[in-house]
Amino acid sequence: MITLADIAELDRADPLAAFRNEFVIPDGLIYLDGNSLGAASRAALAAVEKASREEWANSLIASWNDAGWFTLPSRLGDRLGRLIGAAAGETVVCDTVSVNVFKVMEAALALRPGRNVIVAEASSFPTDLYMLEGVRGRHPGLQIRLEGVDAPRIEDLLDADVAAVLVNHVDYRTGALRDMTAFTARIHEAGALAVWDLCHSAGALAVDLNGAGADLAVGCTYKYLNGGPGAPAFVFAASRHIPHLKQPLTGWWAHARPFAFDLGFEADPGIRRMLCGTQPILSMRGLEGALSVWETVDLAELRRKSMALTGLFIDLVEEKCAGHGLELASPRAAEARGSQVSFLHEGGYAIMQEVIARGVVGDFRRPNLMRFGFAPLYLSYRNIWDAAETLRQVLADDTWRARQVEAGALVT
Amino acid sequence: MITLADIAELDRADPLAAFRNEFVIPDGLIYLDGNSLGAASRAALAAVEKASREEWANSLIASWNDAGWFTLPSRLGDRLGRLIGAAAGETVVCDTVSVNVFKVMEAALALRPGRNVIVAEASSFPTDLYMLEGVRGRHPGLQIRLEGVDAPRIEDLLDADVAAVLVNHVDYRTGALRDMTAFTARIHEAGALAVWDLCHSAGALAVDLNGAGADLAVGCTYKYLNGGPGAPAFVFAASRHIPHLKQPLTGWWAHARPFAFDLGFEADPGIRRMLCGTQPILSMRGLEGALSVWETVDLAELRRKSMALTGLFIDLVEEKCAGHGLELASPRAAEARGSQVSFLHEGGYAIMQEVIARGVVGDFRRPNLMRFGFAPLYLSYRNIWDAAETLRQVLADDTWRARQVEAGALVT
Repeated sequence: MITLADIAELDRADPLAAFRNEFVIPDGLIYLDGNSLGAASRAALAAVEKASREEWANSLIASWNDAGWFTLPSRLGDRLGRLIGAAAGETVVCDTVSVNVFKVMEAALALRPGRNVIVAEASSFPTDLYMLEGVRGRHPGLQIRLEGVDAPRIEDLLDADVAAVLVNHVDYRTGALRDMTAFTARIHEAGALAVWDLCHSAGALAVDLNGAGADLAVGCTYKYLNGGPGAPAFVFAASRHIPHLKQPLTGWWAHARPFAFDLGFEADPGIRRMLCGTQPILSMRGLEGALSVWETVDLAELRRKSMALTGLFIDLVEEKCAGHGLELASPRAAEARGSQVSFLHEGGYAIMQEVIARGVVGDFRRPNLMRFGFAPLYLSYRNIWDAAETLRQVLADDTWRARQVEAGALVT
Repeated sequence: MITLADIAELDRADPLAAFRNEFVIPDGLIYLDGNSLGAASRAALAAVEKASREEWANSLIASWNDAGWFTLPSRLGDRLGRLIGAAAGETVVCDTVSVNVFKVMEAALALRPGRNVIVAEASSFPTDLYMLEGVRGRHPGLQIRLEGVDAPRIEDLLDADVAAVLVNHVDYRTGALRDMTAFTARIHEAGALAVWDLCHSAGALAVDLNGAGADLAVGCTYKYLNGGPGAPAFVFAASRHIPHLKQPLTGWWAHARPFAFDLGFEADPGIRRMLCGTQPILSMRGLEGALSVWETVDLAELRRKSMALTGLFIDLVEEKCAGHGLELASPRAAEARGSQVSFLHEGGYAIMQEVIARGVVGDFRRPNLMRFGFAPLYLSYRNIWDAAETLRQVLADDTWRARQVEAGALVT
């Protein structure tokens, strides 16, 4: 039995506890949805205000140079790069994950001429797959093989026709974490490129792209990185590939001399060739503020706390909610999961609505998955206890069943 | 001779004069660069603050539904649509102009199978041309014909092979305005689609896409529309084309049922099929605030004042600066230009730097073009007088020549 005294001791000993003060968390709210939209840091809010009221309103056009707006994609890329195991000059912040999937997969195909297969996961967040359909439309003969449809495991889909594998580091539904090093090696054995989607791992754990030998990556900045709603995404390319990268969204921000206004396109020699057009500066600045919080985060401590939080939640829920039909959908071994825990329950939608109504915010994915995300920078162990206790209370009474009837149409 | 008394009378009679109070214009600054980055309105700044401090920080994930974040692209598209002659459901706000050029040109090619030529202007802002190169890369045999390279006029480049013409409504260098109706008709005679780039006309004058029979359009929201630095761009498609539009950036926001998380892509039946991924909400909200200012703007009055401001500037500069070697680069006839006036001068870079140092902000484009943009919502006639007077003073003394020597390396 875990006791409140145990919890208090965990919080007392938490080396990351002070980071909570950097964030604005509404009173009384236990926010377990940072895997969907990260919380706002004071630094991010201040950066947005400065960008809008000072840089835009007061300095106007001069801010493109004076405030360094134009170089934000590479400057933020380098700051973010530290969190994902990238070297300087290997990461840019720009556009959306969807657009960046298009760019990196087009680039991957160009790096592997003669190979006409892309492998991905049917369990991927769907936009990755939708973007692959868009890529396929432009490459006659290109096949997409899906783990979960064409074979149970990606390993069984690899052969000499595979140009690239687009694979999620952490599954957005179950939180299952792939071993990036082993998996990249397996992909390389087949002569293919490993393209990692880091949406659910960047900021959730210490990603080490270069340590794993990864080729390309994309990811999101508005989840665990707390960049703000819809903040621009990122692209990583290993330095060995950068001189050879070709992607078709050749906008002026990707040009070697964007202000020369040349008639013809010539790609920037560096990672900026993965950019396209003018970026949304206010949203970029929000991310910049958010990244400033990360400057002093020890990523090993982050991972330790993340594993402890998710493990504690599993233990508490299984202890407090036993007999209520919850089924763990996430890996039980801490090292095999990201910073998220999911439970299956046929009444999942209604239960989650009731849990949210009581101040614990997780989310729901059809048909029956309840997701709880654990952002180690702004959650305490006591939050986890209280969240599990709330879930217990909801399951113990029958109010959620009324919601289920009401909401029937929404969840089918 | 124009007198200050004349100027004062123009300002007294200006029906748009009150709009200036809606904007934050730094004291003493005369801002003639709204054609590059529009000024901040109080409404835009308030909307950004609300989005960051209330919707994001306080309401967190709930704002996707409760604050309507997900529907912003189409809601803002419809509000913006009124300013460009679009019907409801024909416009979405999303991504960048560059990305949207890619989408509309891919869509145009799909609408005209068997035709393998795109026509554009060598004088276009270069990103349009760079994006066409990206399109060409995946369409074997596709040719790009450029006005100014392959023939002097677009009209001479039209034949039965042309799928689409990507044409600027207002030239970003000279401010020259194309007759959209006549030009669209000429393109249609050749069986091609007219794709308009409205970057320098949306918010500068009353655009009438449907009145002209235009097929597709893209444009920018951070110039005359004042959406904020890098605010998302827009896409227009005439309703007759929407059911047939195909574009390869098929992200989840373009899906018919984005929250069903289907394995396969199915395009939204409406204009949302031109979306792709998750949009930068803080920047979108800035644009929303900016558009609220436009709700009560009479576009006929806007155009009248714009023509009067640009005409007055030409008259005053030619009167005050005669003999100093300035050459008008914009059309002299008001109805043939947008809301911008450009002058050529071999010392243009240095002169503009000196003019800016004295509080009149225009900009410079190589090799020798000084651009002055006139946003009728926040400029007075007196501003125009003072700007011309500043230019006169700069030309009359020799301080700009010292800047020219200093800056030599920058402008070649």
